Parts: sequence; C-alpha cells; structure tokens
Amino acid sequence: MTAASVDPARTIAELKELRALTGNEDGAQRVAWTETWAEARAWLKAKLAELPVTVETDEAGNLWATLPGASEQALLIGGHIDSVPNGGWLDGCMNTLAGLEIMRRMAAEGTPPVTLRLVDWADEEGARFGRSLLGSSAFSGNLDPASVADLRDKDGLRLVDALAAQGVDLYQAKACGGQAAKAAAYLELHIEQGPVLESMGLPVGVVIGTFGVERHAITFTGQAAHAGSTPMDKRRDAFGAAAKLGLEIREIAKRHGGVCTVGSCITKPGIVTAVVAECTITLDQRHMEAASLAAMLQEAQDAAERFAVEEKCGVAWERIWQIEPIPFHPDLIALGEEATRAICGTVHLLPSGPLHDAAEVARAGIPTVMIFSQSLYGISHNKIEDTREEDIAYSVQVLDRLASLTMQWIVGHGAKEV
Amino acid sequence: MTAASVDPARTIAELKELRALTGNEDGAQRVAWTETWAEARAWLKAKLAELPVTVETDEAGNLWATLPGASEQALLIGGHIDSVPNGGWLDGCMNTLAGLEIMRRMAAEGTPPVTLRLVDWADEEGARFGRSLLGSSAFSGNLDPASVADLRDKDGLRLVDALAAQGVDLYQAKACGGQAAKAAAYLELHIEQGPVLESMGLPVGVVIGTFGVERHAITFTGQAAHAGSTPMDKRRDAFGAAAKLGLEIREIAKRHGGVCTVGSCITKPGIVTAVVAECTITLDQRHMEAASLAAMLQEAQDAAERFAVEEKCGVAWERIWQIEPIPFHPDLIALGEEATRAICGTVHLLPSGPLHDAAEVARAGIPTVMIFSQSLYGISHNKIEDTREEDIAYSVQVLDRLASLTMQWIVGHGAKEV
Repeated sequence: MTAASVDPARTIAELKELRALTGNEDGAQRVAWTETWAEARAWLKAKLAELPVTVETDEAGNLWATLPGASEQALLIGGHIDSVPNGGWLDGCMNTLAGLEIMRRMAAEGTPPVTLRLVDWADEEGARFGRSLLGSSAFSGNLDPASVADLRDKDGLRLVDALAAQGVDLYQAKACGGQAAKAAAYLELHIEQGPVLESMGLPVGVVIGTFGVERHAITFTGQAAHAGSTPMDKRRDAFGAAAKLGLEIREIAKRHGGVCTVGSCITKPGIVTAVVAECTITLDQRHMEAASLAAMLQEAQDAAERFAVEEKCGVAWERIWQIEPIPFHPDLIALGEEATRAICGTVHLLPSGPLHDAAEVARAGIPTVMIFSQSLYGISHNKIEDTREEDIAYSVQVLDRLASLTMQWIVGHGAKEV
Repeated sequence: MTAASVDPARTIAELKELRALTGNEDGAQRVAWTETWAEARAWLKAKLAELPVTVETDEAGNLWATLPGASEQALLIGGHIDSVPNGGWLDGCMNTLAGLEIMRRMAAEGTPPVTLRLVDWADEEGARFGRSLLGSSAFSGNLDPASVADLRDKDGLRLVDALAAQGVDLYQAKACGGQAAKAAAYLELHIEQGPVLESMGLPVGVVIGTFGVERHAITFTGQAAHAGSTPMDKRRDAFGAAAKLGLEIREIAKRHGGVCTVGSCITKPGIVTAVVAECTITLDQRHMEAASLAAMLQEAQDAAERFAVEEKCGVAWERIWQIEPIPFHPDLIALGEEATRAICGTVHLLPSGPLHDAAEVARAGIPTVMIFSQSLYGISHNKIEDTREEDIAYSVQVLDRLASLTMQWIVGHGAKEV
C-alpha cells in the first residue's frame, strides 16, 4: 500500500467550482429534483469517473460510489449535494466532496481494508416539497410513500411526479434499503449551522447525536375587549398568557440543558384597540435525552395550564411533529474524539439541533457519528453561510483520520451487533 | 306649563323598530353614507315631524332638530344613528332616540326655559372610510378635509365622493361649526361598551371625560437562528423582548390607574424552527390625566430599552396616533351625579375609554357630560351587544332628569366662560 494524503485545498477549490456551476448571486440553487441539481450530480459523477469506483443510483435517487476493499464490510461516508433555494456554498456538498477526497486518497493507496462507499443522499433539504431526509429515510425504511406522494411544490407539481421525471418511482424507493446490507459504519461531516464552535474558537466538533424534538402549536383563548373601556382587572388577555409561556419555556430549557423556542406568535383579532382574544404560539423543544425532553414538555404543559388560569383563558395544544433523540455510536464518538485531538489538539462534544441524514442511518441500526465544522455567525440556509477555509481544511483532515480509524475498528471487531 | 314625563318603553319600542328596519340577522347595517343609513335618517325625520321642531341638515351632514325655548341659549343632546357593519342595536342610536323622547316630553310641556336641540352626528363610527367622529370633528373645527378626502372604502370609492352623493361638500363641512353659536351645554347618553358598570351591578354611570391615548408600534430586532442548533445563551430573541414588554405594560397600567394593551404581535420569519428575528407589537395606552399618560409612555419606553439590552436586540418606536385626555365639565358631572342618584340611588363616576362625539364637542369648548348605560358582557360593535331593557329605561330617565337640571343650570348662570 502506498502512503497518500488528502488535499483539502482541492476540496475547497471543488466547492468553489460547484458554486460557480450551480449558484448565482442569491446563493446555491441545487434544489433536489431540479435541472440544477441534476447538473451538480453529473459534475460529481465526472469526478468519480476518474477513480476506480463503481457508481450507481438507487431506487430512491441516492447516488452511491463504491471502492472495493479487502472486506465486503463497508464504511459509508455521506453527504447531500442538494441545497435550499438561495442556500449556502457548504451545507451538504462539503460533506460529499470531503468524502470524495478521502475516496481519492484511499484509491491512491491501493485496496483499503474494508470497502469504502460514498453516498450522496437525495433531497436532504425537502426544500421543494417540505419533506426533508427523503432519500435517507427511504434507506432506513422510515419513509411512508403514500403520505408524501401528493405533496406539491409551489407550481402545484406533485412530489411523486417530480421524482418520476428524475427516474425515481416513489413507491419503489424503500427498496434502496438493500444498500445497507454490508454497512458497518457511517460517517458524515457537516457545517454546524449554529454558534457553539465559533463561540469556543474551535474548528471542529464531534456530534453525540441528534436532538429529540417535540413541536406543538399552543392556542390561548381569552376574550376580545375594548382597549379603552376594559379595566386591567376585567381582561381575559390571551397575549398575556402566551407572553408568560414564551418567557417560561426559556427557563425550562435552561433547567434541563435543552433548547426551547417560540418561533411564531399570531394574535386575533390582532388590532391595536382590542385585547387579544386568541393567541397561537409555536413551541419547538429539543433535548438529547428522551426523559429530559418529556420533562420539558410536561413542564411547558403545566406552565401553560397555570398561565391560562391566571389569565382566565382557555388553552389547547396541537402536536405538529415529534421525533425521539437519536444518539450516535459510543465507539465512533470515541474515534471522532481521537481523530479530532490528533488534528486539532482540542475536542468538544456537542449535540446536533438540526436533523441530518446521519440520524436516519443511525435509526437503521448502522453505527454512526458526525463531525461538525465551525459555522461563521451560526447562519445557514442563506447565501451568507460561511466557514473559514482553514477550518474546512481541518474538517476534511479530521474526517480522513476518522475514516482510517473507523476502518481499523471495523476490521478489529466493529460494533457488537454487526 | 303642563307636567309630562318620558316614556322609556316607547324608546325601547322605537329601538326595536329601527333594528327591524335597518338590521338583518348579522346585526345593524346603518353604515354612514349608505342607503340604509339614509333610510334610518328618513325614519327619524318622520318621528321628528310629529313635534313642533325645525329640522335641518348642516354642512357636514349632521341632522339638527330644534325646539325653541324661552332663551336662545341651547342645550344640545346628541347621538349617532350610524353603526358599524354587523353592529349592535344600541350603539349610537339609543342616544339619539333617548334625546327624541326627552324632546317629546319637553314639547308636551310647552316652551322650555332654554332651547333644546337634538343632534344626530354624521359618521361617528368611521366604519367605511376609517375616519371616526367625522361630523362632530367638523363641528369642533378639528377635521382636516384634505387629509381624509382620498380615504377609500373597500370598493375603492373616495370619501369625498361618497359624501357628495349624500349632498355633503367635504370642503365646506367645517361651516357647520356655526351650529355651536348658542350652545350652552351638551349631553350624550351611550352604552358603556365595557364591563365596569356590569361588574358593579349598576344600570348607569356618569362619565368624567375621555381618556388621552398614546398608540405606538414597537419593533424589536434580534437575529433569526436555528431553533435546534442555537443554545439558549447565544440567542437574540425578539419575541422574548416583546413578551417581557407585553407583561410589563400591564404593571405600568396598574401603577398609574390607566389601561395599556398589546393588541397585535407579528413575528418574522415566524416559523416554528427559528428564533424570532423581528417582533412588532402594538401598544395602546390610555389615561384620564395627561401627566400620568406621559409617565406611562415614558415607563414603557424605558422598559423596552431595558428589555432590548437584556435580549441583545434593537428596538424602534413608531407613533400611530395620540390624543390628549378630554375632561368633561365639573358642573355637569355634578348634575349627572345628582340625576343618577335621584333615579338609581347609587352613583359611579368612570372615564370613557372609547372616544365619542362628546369629546369633540368638549374640545369645541362647550360644557359637556356623558351618561353611560350598562353593557352586557362588555361587548359592542357586534350583534350580541346588549343592555337589559330595565337599564335602558333607567338611562333614559337619568338623561331626562339631567336635561332638566342642565337647563336650570344654563338659566342660572351656566359655565363661567359661556
């Protein structure tokens, strides 16, 4: 085996090449199932064609490149080349291109000890039809085709038809789960999309899992009343109850070490001269521990009841969505720490607030870990999303080191259940 | 002079007659400058034609009926027969019809000591063009024709044209101020449109004046951030700042004995997965004392600054509207107390939160007082607006007694400045 090394500068150059090819002055435009996304995929396939790998697209539209190893057991490295409209230059595609660079390094060295597979997931963002993690949830078996077939884009086109136009039969998509057969581990690099690493001055962090989420709409119902003729003690103020809850959920989050967010507040009748009769807020709660998440929800519900009584209002909860916490594999987290310490010196472990394809892979029972690179300003899904080039370089090197360590781990024994 | 008395049962019967004529299953439909409003006016004129009074419509569309007295000095009793769309059966027209009943009683008795004038103000509600108190502000000289001429109704018709179709030249409207020449006092009965008298179990209250109002839109500007990836201590939460202010203004109101209301809250981007970047709330503050109103505003501004700093947000205020407190005449308030005590036994003085035509008359320098009748549920501008018939009867009797007392007061000396 010849010693070779990754060239992070090449990854950065390829990211810029992709940006020039598939972005404009408003940012990245690689929305899944569009012409621009297909162009990005074609560009990626041309890069892969230079390597001794086989390339295939599975039943869900996920793109796989396979570099055979001494063992059929496979290390998967994943990413997604699709973007939101007017997206950033790194979200998703950095992962794919870092994986490509590692594949190049391993191919140059000869036959790796285990098979290396790069997967470019289809439609991670869900930007066009509102269903994110489409390809990876087909892979994990968590996709329900019937529930998404009739989702429509802003032009009224159905999801099932848009996929068919790209050669994907939605109702056959879950057959791609066969790709998991020999998968022994999954790695994914991603920008953090949050401010934690930036605030700590760290280029890279190791992700311990994805938060569980409880998402609800909460409606307080009081009584519209004239702002001039209704004394303060005669009001049933739905906004007052909502404001109290909006502040209380922040205390709940701090007590439990999770996050809670009121992202929307709608007031009715919503006029300057009337006490608010009805106020609906959304509540998004996330935690890495299922028990803590459940406690945060219970405390928010108790608080809402208390505030409703105090304000002489009614209160009703409607669940919008929920998902359990998905912890990553402890052995791979330890390897991620080892790789990060070797490249960067300092290690920080953090949970992921956003979901990622890695969460679906972990749900499929494949040992998984993610690496985050620092995001500037904590901003993503926007053209001003950015990461310093030196930090991109660090993250490519960490992923590369982690890939080698993980192959050794697979060869050694791997996860007990594999 | 023959002794006669008012017949409140007739007033109630006439209110029901008017409701049948100009309302439907959704409520009263006497929107000013419409056909239905003109029908209501014609109906009123037919009633007035049975009395020895002269009737005229002034330059602003206000309808005047005059019963000459021994003195040219005049007592005015006012009301407004116009309603909001889908309005209640009492708001405005009860005042006019109670005045009609008192005019009947005085006409039956012969020549009153001073002239009695009933005025039915044009477009108190401003329901069609958004400019309330149109006729009375023309009377007081506070109307600026140029600033309202181009207001449009929902069909795009301009105010100036709608008035012309009813024979009113907007630019000549303020000439109606000449009607004030011999006015020595002004009385107005109105439903409370609030819950105070109902909560006290009183049929009638005496109004000490109309609140001064400060009305603002307040925008807090933070930073949109991912609800999952942004730790609680790294947020700039515009909704958090707005919620704090929404609660604080209630404490400010209680401290000063005024009212403060957040009637509307708008969040941007307003999605469940993002910390609120921008939150705009409306603030309506009212007080009977100008100094207290100014203090309430200052304290709200100070609190907004403090909360903006705490939440690392910006804050900007935009004034929507303001008006000074308008106190009613102390002598007439005393007469109102005397009349109420004589009819009902118990007296309660209260400020008016809503503005009324009486406020414009008081601004014109004419000694003014209002009587409120109890409102059920504190609800108005809605077909479920209601007042018990016995309370309507009490209010007609109180107004009648007050009219006699006020005539004696005018004969005796009247206000010093008259």
